Formats: sequence, structure tokens, C-alpha cells
Amino acid sequence: MTEKVKLGIIGYGAEGGMYAGFFAKNDERLDQNVIELAAICDNDPAKKEKVAQDFPELPFFDNYLDMLESGVVNAIVTTVPHYEHVKMGMDALKYGIHLLGEKPVGVYTKEVERLIAASKEYSDTTFAIFFNQRTNPLYRRVKELMDNKEIGDLQRATWIITTWWRPQGYYNQSNWRATWGGEGGGVLVNQAPHQLDLLQWICGKPEKVTAKLQYGAGRDIAVENEVNALLDFGNGVTGSFITCTHDMIGTDRFEIFGSKGKIVVEDSKRLTVKKLVKAEEELSETMSMEDVVKLFMGQMNMSDYVEETVEEFETVMGQQHIDVLNNFANHIVNGEELLAPGEDGINGVRLANSIHLSSWLDKEVDYNHDKDLYLDELNKRIVEEGKFETKA
Amino acid sequence: MTEKVKLGIIGYGAEGGMYAGFFAKNDERLDQNVIELAAICDNDPAKKEKVAQDFPELPFFDNYLDMLESGVVNAIVTTVPHYEHVKMGMDALKYGIHLLGEKPVGVYTKEVERLIAASKEYSDTTFAIFFNQRTNPLYRRVKELMDNKEIGDLQRATWIITTWWRPQGYYNQSNWRATWGGEGGGVLVNQAPHQLDLLQWICGKPEKVTAKLQYGAGRDIAVENEVNALLDFGNGVTGSFITCTHDMIGTDRFEIFGSKGKIVVEDSKRLTVKKLVKAEEELSETMSMEDVVKLFMGQMNMSDYVEETVEEFETVMGQQHIDVLNNFANHIVNGEELLAPGEDGINGVRLANSIHLSSWLDKEVDYNHDKDLYLDELNKRIVEEGKFETKA
Repeated sequence: MTEKVKLGIIGYGAEGGMYAGFFAKNDERLDQNVIELAAICDNDPAKKEKVAQDFPELPFFDNYLDMLESGVVNAIVTTVPHYEHVKMGMDALKYGIHLLGEKPVGVYTKEVERLIAASKEYSDTTFAIFFNQRTNPLYRRVKELMDNKEIGDLQRATWIITTWWRPQGYYNQSNWRATWGGEGGGVLVNQAPHQLDLLQWICGKPEKVTAKLQYGAGRDIAVENEVNALLDFGNGVTGSFITCTHDMIGTDRFEIFGSKGKIVVEDSKRLTVKKLVKAEEELSETMSMEDVVKLFMGQMNMSDYVEETVEEFETVMGQQHIDVLNNFANHIVNGEELLAPGEDGINGVRLANSIHLSSWLDKEVDYNHDKDLYLDELNKRIVEEGKFETKA
Repeated sequence: MTEKVKLGIIGYGAEGGMYAGFFAKNDERLDQNVIELAAICDNDPAKKEKVAQDFPELPFFDNYLDMLESGVVNAIVTTVPHYEHVKMGMDALKYGIHLLGEKPVGVYTKEVERLIAASKEYSDTTFAIFFNQRTNPLYRRVKELMDNKEIGDLQRATWIITTWWRPQGYYNQSNWRATWGGEGGGVLVNQAPHQLDLLQWICGKPEKVTAKLQYGAGRDIAVENEVNALLDFGNGVTGSFITCTHDMIGTDRFEIFGSKGKIVVEDSKRLTVKKLVKAEEELSETMSMEDVVKLFMGQMNMSDYVEETVEEFETVMGQQHIDVLNNFANHIVNGEELLAPGEDGINGVRLANSIHLSSWLDKEVDYNHDKDLYLDELNKRIVEEGKFETKA
């Protein structure tokens, strides 16, 4: 058996504080046979004091490189601004330290590819992404249904996910937030990465993307906070991905239409599955003329052809995050399969980049677009903004 | 007072039969002070016999021009294949006979413009469109809410309207159905024109359209039966219009997101209106830091900011169609305002044409695209199909 995971948390903010809290409270759900909290790192002196109060015995570092070199930790989680994810991740891998990267794995695919290349070079070191929604039993069930073709082949997916309301005060909290140079985007980079991951995890990768965005809709910010994207999966199979941060009455409705049925997820908690008794095309071809007439007279009972199930899922505070920590540690210690391997993280980033790029170029773009073109366009916006260095 | 409307029904099929039935049954809802059934026309000999049985006293014509010339009718309704609408309509107007045109007003804007020009030339003659959904109290209420800016300015509209399931047997009923040359398209021309009208009647006209279509999805037909269209109303205001005829478990969900609230219509019968107590931007700007923190702790009661009402609307069989007939007649006789003036009909046609054209050219197109380009592209498909003459 490999050594137990000794986790170092980099960043003692809201997320980092939550993870540390699981250990502090000896949360029963945490598999402490395989994981322990070994250190916390933060470059903010105020956080140093706070950690000293909360965890008087725990090693603290104000520089992540010192932590990586210390020998105190053999794994890290990076709850830091997005642009730090790749650099810290690559340094960890070079030190042979397992990486649980926060989402998004990076801001642009060019940097993410560097991280993935490093993870292949240091292939004994685990690289996973903190996609806690992948542990959500509801979305795991949806993925299973789709993987097993229980509603046939994908025809269309439509996700309206606008429950990300953020007032101006949220954006005013720090100078990097909702900037091109400090954060790399808006709702696509900060709030919606989970759904960008789930959408392609469940429905596959699109081929082309056309998107219409608003930048600073009702907010004093430079980045996008209103998104309507049309995804083309090829052969007329499509998707719509709609998100924003200015809808106080948020909608969360994910509909997947397949050749043998339909899945509707409402509020990320109610799952309705409607399965046809046969493939729709077969029902269409074998329906008698008499039944066609009945259909138009409103005399056909459509429910004769449909089996419907409704399941309610409860969200248990912290469960998803603990599941990710347990899975990460059990993978390292016992070889359990990773729920979110690091290289999976690039798909959501590529989708977010495609959506930006389509809006910037005002045309449809390939999902597999030129990564340098994206970075050039991003840098143009960073230069215009004039607050941060360009990226490479 | 102008003479009572003496209506001639052209086409004694399902629609024409329904309208005639209102008169046969002396339907109380029909305003028979202003409208009477004066003749029926059909070029099918079998229909002649049927009319003789159903209305032994009523004048019957097997040629619509004879009916127009007869002096028996002073108004017609055209329940005939789409490509006949414009020709018959223009002939009626030339004879000074009021026209209640069936939807769609025509197949392509070039022909519809000819009809509109004729209606201006013969401006004493009434030209209206049978948009019965405009009399639907639910959609009238939605239009009123939008016109009065009760949810502020439009940000985004999303209509999934896939309750148009049609099996192969439906398409096999006649050789013109679901062809380019005989019908001019599929779901956009036959099933969805009501929603294409309502969408732009309620939300305004888009500037640009990007659409992804499937032709003959699960059906042996040449035309489109799966549509996902992204509408650009300018300034980042967008819409999605999704329709198809191969979803046996149809969805009908229309969501309108505005700067002061949200409207959701489900199954064309349940209307939920959520109005913010103030404009969203104002709430965003004035929210205290304390409340921002509460928001993230899940301690903010969002319902404090929202007034919600839910109304259920019942569909009464025939009511909408009778309302259109009454409005048409009362306009002619008493000058009542028309619910659907003929020239309004072009908007839905232009939207359908834009959606086709975007798919055919595989790019975003202007809503106000070149009408000749559309017709050329349509004719290409008619030639390829090889069953019907091209159009002019």
C-alpha cells in the first residue's frame, strides 16, 4: 500500500476553509484512513493568523514552493485564482506531489496543454480535477443513462443554468475579479465551469460553437455575464448552453432529447426520465393510419408509449467535496478509478474558450480551434484593460 | 353599417370543415349578426358530395375563381396548400373580396410581398391572417406584459416547442406533404408558424439568425423536422427557437427573461410571472456587502425580492378560431381593430425563411436577407427533388 495522502491546501479562502473544516470537524464521511490534512499555505498574513487560531499544531507556509519542498505534504489542492492553477500544478507535479486542481484547470487551452504534458511526463504522480459535481448522484445517474443509451442517441441538449446571480458588490470584492487579466473571463470561467464539464461529460464534445454574449450586462465589469451558445455536435445534433449572472430569478433546467426518450433535470435535484417503449422511429413507422387519425382527434393516449420515472435527489452539504477528496486519496492509495482525471479538465476549458472566441470573432468557431488564436484574442483584451500582464 | 360578411370557405378539409361546422351547429359564440357562411369551394369531387350532404342548401363551387365572380360571397378563407395562399389571396383582393388568409401567409417573402402590395392597392378590402393563437388569452396576456415592460426589457427568450409529433403515416397522406415543391418546407412551414408569429409578435423581430436543422430526422421526407435556431436581437439580446416533429414526448416551454423579471409559459396553459420589486440592476447596485455574504451562505431569502403569480388557462375547443372569425367580420362591419392584419404575416415567414437559409448556407444570416437569394435556394431544392415546378 502506498503512503496515506498528506494534503496541503493552498489558499485559505472560502473553498480552502471548507476543505480544512472537514478535517477540523473530523467529518465521518471523510475517509481518514487514506487522507489527512498536513499543511496550509496562504500568502496573505491575515490568513496566517487565522490558520494559527484554527489549526494551532498544523504546519503553515506563506509560499507554496516552500510547502512543496518541505516534505510535509505529498499532495496539494489549489484553491487560488484561476491563472495560478497551471503554474502551481506544474510545480507540484515536478516535485512528485499529487495534484488535485481546482476548476477550471486553467483559463486557456494552451496553458492547460502544458500542464497535461507535465502530468504525462511525471506519470507516477496523480493529477485530478475538483469537479465535485461529477460526484453528484443525480448527474452520475444522467451520465449512466446516456452511456447506456437508455434514451437512445442524443438529438438535442438544452441547459438553461442561470442560478448564478452575482450583484455588483460581489464583483467589487477584489481587483482581479471579473477582469480579463486577473480572472480570464466571467461566468464561463468562474461560475459555470461545472456545467461546462458536465455537459460534455454527459453529452460528448461538440464540433462547432456559435455564441452570443453580453459583457457587463447590468454590471460594471469587462467580462461576459450573459451567454447564449448554440452547440453543433454534427449531423444536426445540437445543444444550447445558456448562462448568466444577472438573473435574480435563476433557472436551472437541463433537457436531453434522445431517439428513445427524454431526460429533464430541474433545479439540479429533480430527475424526470421518459423512455419510449420502442425507438421513436420504429413507433413512427409502424403506427397505423387509424392511430394517426386518433392522434389528430386528440384521442391517442401518448402515455401508452412512455414509461416515466421521477426521482428527487437531496443535496447534502459538503458531500460532493468529500467524495472528491476520498476518491482522489483512494486512487492514490488503493488504485480506485479517478472520477475526474486531470486531462478531462481541458474539455470544459476548450468549450468556454470556444464560446468566447465565437463572440469575439462574431462567427461560428470549431471546438478544436487554434489555441494560439484564442490566447492572442485574450491578450488583446488584457492589453485594452490595462491592469495586468499579458499571458503566454 | 357595411354589409354583413358572407364567407366563402375554400377547401373543405379538416380546417375548412371545422369552420363550416361552427355555422352548421349555430355555435352561440359565433357573432352571426356580422358573419354567415355563404358558399364552400373545393376542387375534389368527393368533397362536392360531402358538402351536398352536410349543407344541402349551400352554394358549392369546384373552382375558386367562379366563387369569387359569383357575387355570392364577399369574403373568403383559404384552407388550401400553402403555395396556393398568395395566388388565391391576390385574386380575391382584385375582386374586392375580403381575405382571411390561412397561415402561413405564403412560403417565401417574395410572394408575400406581392400579396401585401396588392392589399395596399385594394386598400378598401380587408386582409387578415388566421393567427388564431393571437386570440389565445394566455399569449395575449404575455404580449400585454411585454408591451407594458412589466418584466422590463427583453434579455433572452427561449422557446422549446416540440409538441408537434408526426409519424411517417402522416407524411404519407399526400404527395405534396413535406416536400420542397409541394409544401415549401417541414415543421417551419406547417406546424410551427403559430409560434414563429407569437415569438416575434411578443418579443420583436430579431436582426440575425443562426440555425442548425435536420432534414428527415427519423422520417422519409426531404424537409426539415428538427430545428435549433439562435436569434440575435442586437446588443446581446438573444432568443432560442427549438422545434421538431420527431419528439413523441413533446416539450412546450417558453421562457422570457427580462431586466425586471421572468415569464415562463408551460404547455401553453400555465403562465408564471415573476416580477422583481425593483429593476435587477438597481437591486444589484444597492445590495449591501452583508447581504452579499448572506447570499453566499444561502441565508438570503430571494423571494423577498420577487412577486410571483401563476395563472392557469383553459383551452376551449374552437374558441380561438371563432374569435378570429368574429374579429375579421367585426372589423369589416364595425371597424373593430384587426388582431392579425395581413401584412403582419410576413414576419413569421421571414423568420422561417431565415432559419432555412442559415442552415442552407451554413452561416449566420440577416433576418432581412435577400428575398431572391432565398427563392433561388428554395428552387434549387425543388429542382433536386424533381416532383414540382419551381416558383417565381
